[in-house]
Amino acid sequence: MPYVNIKITREGATAAQKAELIKGVTDLLVNVLGKNPATTVVVIDEVDTDNWGIGGESVTTRRRRGQ
Amino acid sequence: MPYVNIKITREGATAAQKAELIKGVTDLLVNVLGKNPATTVVVIDEVDTDNWGIGGESVTTRRRRGQ
Amino acid sequence: MPYVNIKITREGATAAQKAELIKGVTDLLVNVLGKNPATTVVVIDEVDTDNWGIGGESVTTRRRRGQ
Amino acid sequence: MPYVNIKITREGATAAQKAELIKGVTDLLVNVLGKNPATTVVVIDEVDTDNWGIGGESVTTRRRRGQ
Amino acid sequence: MPYVNIKITREGATAAQKAELIKGVTDLLVNVLGKNPATTVVVIDEVDTDNWGIGGESVTTRRRRGQ
Amino acid sequence: MPYVNIKITREGATAAQKAELIKGVTDLLVNVLGKNPATTVVVIDEVDTDNWGIGGESVTTRRRRGQ
Repeated sequence: MPYVNIKITREGATAAQKAELIKGVTDLLVNVLGKNPATTVVVIDEVDTDNWGIGGESVTTRRRRGQ
Repeated sequence: MPYVNIKITREGATAAQKAELIKGVTDLLVNVLGKNPATTVVVIDEVDTDNWGIGGESVTTRRRRGQ
Repeated sequence: MPYVNIKITREGATAAQKAELIKGVTDLLVNVLGKNPATTVVVIDEVDTDNWGIGGESVTTRRRRGQ
Repeated sequence: MPYVNIKITREGATAAQKAELIKGVTDLLVNVLGKNPATTVVVIDEVDTDNWGIGGESVTTRRRRGQ
Repeated sequence: MPYVNIKITREGATAAQKAELIKGVTDLLVNVLGKNPATTVVVIDEVDTDNWGIGGESVTTRRRRGQ
Repeated sequence: MPYVNIKITREGATAAQKAELIKGVTDLLVNVLGKNPATTVVVIDEVDTDNWGIGGESVTTRRRRGQ
């Protein structure tokens, strides 16, 4: 019955890619720890690049510099 | 001074229902643990069904099958 | 299939009290939003009073002053 | 390599203010704990006032009363 | 630069199994979304079975019944 | 009424350092966004190095290599 929260920047992940993350993380918990997939919950949060910081600055600022 | 985070799928919960959740959780913490309601914080996150997985698939896919 | 995270200070909540929180929050989600209890997950985090701040100071400091 | 999550109500914080929060929290972790800023992540969540409760009621309700 | 939080019950996951989860989730984010592993953070929380509820009761109670 | 969660590895942060983080983050939210410190909550989670991953491996493994 694990719970997994994945936070990524909102930069165009498709429904198919998100489904792949959900499937991949669930399989991993089944394979590594024998968890029950039926009660394994995965929540993906997509966060605006203005609201995500790393190295003391926002991802918006980094993307503008080409990073 | 508890902090409660409720995550639900974004499927039309009304402001009145969310107010009822806030009131109900706060009352519960007051009644069970004697917490101070004035500093009890409740945050509700509504998550797109594409971004919520259970049983290895998204809620969007499950809803499409009528689950 | 909601997920609820309750954070409280670690100040002696008993297993019975925590069971009451789990039952109460689950019932609330069933009653207010018609959620399925079988896939409703509740996680309680108990946090040391040194690690919880409010009003700019730790709960340890507040408790020492009788608050 | 700390991770910081800041949750505030969605009430008009600007990109510049959010950049200031990201910079300020990162500097704090560098200064107090000697953390490496390059792997310090800050995520800001802006939450609708209907979805934030304190004192058993939503911030929407409190704002309406002038609080 | 994703952030992933995995919550599981504290029931004896080994350091090797946790390393496998960290590796597996990081690889998944690289493969599905092309994320940079160097800034991909994974945090695993192990939660006492008294503090984890599903179906309105704690995992401690469920384990006692053999579930 | 912000809520801030700071996650760091459990590597000996003192109560004084944690108090400094609580004070610093609260002041930042007051100064940048005019938030009310009385209802600003800060929760610090200290995470075992086995349970924190970056770059696809645990911090335990990185520390062993001198990183």
